[in-house]
Amino acid sequence: MNNAYETPQDAEDAFYDALEEGDLGKVLTVWADSDDVSCLLPRYPLIRGRREVEEVFRHLFSQGQGVALTVRHLGWVNADDMAIHHVEETLQHVPPGTPPPPPFYGTNIYRKHDAGWCLIMHLNAPMPAPPQ
Amino acid sequence: MNNAYETPQDAEDAFYDALEEGDLGKVLTVWADSDDVSCLLPRYPLIRGRREVEEVFRHLFSQGQGVALTVRHLGWVNADDMAIHHVEETLQHVPPGTPPPPPFYGTNIYRKHDAGWCLIMHLNAPMPAPPQ
Repeated sequence: MNNAYETPQDAEDAFYDALEEGDLGKVLTVWADSDDVSCLLPRYPLIRGRREVEEVFRHLFSQGQGVALTVRHLGWVNADDMAIHHVEETLQHVPPGTPPPPPFYGTNIYRKHDAGWCLIMHLNAPMPAPPQ
Repeated sequence: MNNAYETPQDAEDAFYDALEEGDLGKVLTVWADSDDVSCLLPRYPLIRGRREVEEVFRHLFSQGQGVALTVRHLGWVNADDMAIHHVEETLQHVPPGTPPPPPFYGTNIYRKHDAGWCLIMHLNAPMPAPPQ
C-alpha cells in the first residue's frame, strides 16, 4: 500500500511531485501505512489517521488539478528514526486577477520503518504578513 | 541551563505553566539546550535556535503579563526518543470589548536526552473558521 524511501528527502520530493500531479495514489504511497499520521492543510481542520489523510487529499484534489508549490528548505532536525523538515511553500499558479497568497510554512515529519522513510506528519501554518 | 522531565507530559505541563506565569527562565528550562530547536508562535516568523527561542519569548512577555491558555489534547505520537503532541490552545483572558480569537492548534515535539525529556519544537497554526 505504500512505498518507503531511502532518505527523508526522497519521500519529500515524491510528496511534492504527487501534490503537483494531483495524484492521490502517489500521495498516499508517501504516507506511512499507519494511523499515527496527521495532517493540517491550510483552511482545513487537523486530521489524524490514514483514512482521514486519504479523504482530505481526495477533497483537495476535487477542487482542481493538483497543487504546484515552490518549496524552499528552511532547516531540519534529524534523529535516528525521525526527521523533521521545515519548508516554505509558495503557490506557483494563482488564478488571474487574484493577488498571490502569502507563502505557508510547511513542517514535514518522516519516520524510518524497516523498509525506509515515510511521511507521518504534514503541517501548514501561515507566514506572518511582512511588516508595514 | 535546562531541566529535563521524566515524561513529555511533564515537560508540556511545565511549558504551559511557565507561559501563563510569563516566566522566561522557566520557559527556557523546558526547551532543549540545543540549536536544533524551532518555534512558530502566532503572528511571528518561524525561528530556529536556542538564542532565538529566548528572544521570541522575551518579546512575547514584553507585551504583557504572560499567556494563560486552556490546553486540550488532540492526540500524540510516541517514538523511543521523540514524542509529538497535538493540542488545541484557547486564550483564557481576552481584553474587554474584544471578540475572543479562535483557538490555535499547537504541535509540541519532545526529545529524550540522557537526563530526560525536553521540548525541541513548538508550532502554532490557526484553526479554520467554523463553517457558516
